[in-house]
Amino acid sequence: MKYYDRKINYYETDQMGIVHHSNYARFFEEARISYMDQMGYPYERLEAEGIISPVLEISCKFLHSVRFGDTVRIEVTTTAVSKVKCSFAYKVTDLATGELKARGESEHGFITRDGKPIILPKEKPEFYQLLLNEFEMSDAGIK
Amino acid sequence: MKYYDRKINYYETDQMGIVHHSNYARFFEEARISYMDQMGYPYERLEAEGIISPVLEISCKFLHSVRFGDTVRIEVTTTAVSKVKCSFAYKVTDLATGELKARGESEHGFITRDGKPIILPKEKPEFYQLLLNEFEMSDAGIK
Amino acid sequence: MKYYDRKINYYETDQMGIVHHSNYARFFEEARISYMDQMGYPYERLEAEGIISPVLEISCKFLHSVRFGDTVRIEVTTTAVSKVKCSFAYKVTDLATGELKARGESEHGFITRDGKPIILPKEKPEFYQLLLNEFEMSDAGIK
Amino acid sequence: MKYYDRKINYYETDQMGIVHHSNYARFFEEARISYMDQMGYPYERLEAEGIISPVLEISCKFLHSVRFGDTVRIEVTTTAVSKVKCSFAYKVTDLATGELKARGESEHGFITRDGKPIILPKEKPEFYQLLLNEFEMSDAGIK
Repeated sequence: MKYYDRKINYYETDQMGIVHHSNYARFFEEARISYMDQMGYPYERLEAEGIISPVLEISCKFLHSVRFGDTVRIEVTTTAVSKVKCSFAYKVTDLATGELKARGESEHGFITRDGKPIILPKEKPEFYQLLLNEFEMSDAGIK
Repeated sequence: MKYYDRKINYYETDQMGIVHHSNYARFFEEARISYMDQMGYPYERLEAEGIISPVLEISCKFLHSVRFGDTVRIEVTTTAVSKVKCSFAYKVTDLATGELKARGESEHGFITRDGKPIILPKEKPEFYQLLLNEFEMSDAGIK
Repeated sequence: MKYYDRKINYYETDQMGIVHHSNYARFFEEARISYMDQMGYPYERLEAEGIISPVLEISCKFLHSVRFGDTVRIEVTTTAVSKVKCSFAYKVTDLATGELKARGESEHGFITRDGKPIILPKEKPEFYQLLLNEFEMSDAGIK
Repeated sequence: MKYYDRKINYYETDQMGIVHHSNYARFFEEARISYMDQMGYPYERLEAEGIISPVLEISCKFLHSVRFGDTVRIEVTTTAVSKVKCSFAYKVTDLATGELKARGESEHGFITRDGKPIILPKEKPEFYQLLLNEFEMSDAGIK
């Protein structure tokens, strides 16, 4: 299981006194980038090779508030891999108490700098294989 | 149909050269607050009356990139109303070309400052009725 | 006098219940981009011509809090122009009451996409002249 | 010397391909909150005791660009302490190369939740003494 721990910043709160919901997409991104580092294919490498990975879809359910000073643990799993895109799931818990705070999902494409979609197994076979390995390690079943 | 037009800021771009996806939750919030103004019950009034409205769930599909200098139109509709929560849908188009850029949804609860859920028809009947009117005007059908 | 009016968003507040101070640099940027539009040389045009304009220095004094729902007016003036950089001053007032909320300044360079500084009067003479005109219209005196 | 190390996030970049300048105020805040933790008086404690600390003034000079994936070290020093406010300086260097990236300063007041300024030595003597100790340890000289 791969995870990323993150302390909440003051500027991430809003006047409700809790973390503004728009920040979760940012936490997911941080966790996803750490996940790719841990997986052995940093996102920086993809971009250095001329590939960018736009977000196609994102969702999040907010179960309990997160506050300034809290540290959350974000677990990332690969929930789908195809030749042109992949999906990740995120589980956000309080590091101290284990309370489930939020759950989310995101889907990602892979394109060249000028917007041409790429075929992962053909153009990034090493990355594709690593994604498949992650998918198999997850409990997401076959898709 | 209620909508909100919004010019994209430079600081909302990322190094892909497009608007960072986390900003759409912020655009939705701006559009929703304008929607409540247009509906006749500003969000400021709810908070002044001691009610806050946390986001319970949010999702967004990104269809085409939005860039610095673009202006988007965000249409908001009420897609569900219950005694304790409500949902909105968002349609983001390019103001100049009409191209569909993104679609999203969000769900919202209503609680007191100290976290107690409220029953809308009982405790905020005027607001509840306005939401129901919006829901009926939408093409969302009965839920 | 050129100015830019801006309504404060909910997501720009923090748990103090006021606008988080980091947003002022963003308001200044919005006002500066509107100022360049009004001046007749949109920032988009500079970038389309291969020039980017990094911020070299920024400062802000915060006099009174700004809150969700407030609208601020940001006046921009050109306070210095040289062959390689320029400076702007910002005055933020409450649109409704006229109360002075904040004052700021920023300094900007001009470089090519690969980081080479450019000589404005030589490489962007029209833009340089417009900046000089703005500077002369300001009450900033000679620098 | 107290410092705070911080990896740059993707969402902190803009379409220039560098960190957007507005984020430095956020990095300073993170570093300042870590500094108060290290000093032995967490900012959370101040707020729990009913005191908030608005930013009165902030400035930053940007010397070299910072990019996604970089890690910066932010050194914080106390540069002024009075009975009602204090100032900090920030030095941002690249953790890997030591290159100086930016320098900044901020000034902070201390008020109650309802906006009344407090006299630090009288109302928060322990915190005031810790600030004075920090100031004396700094090379800022007497102010």
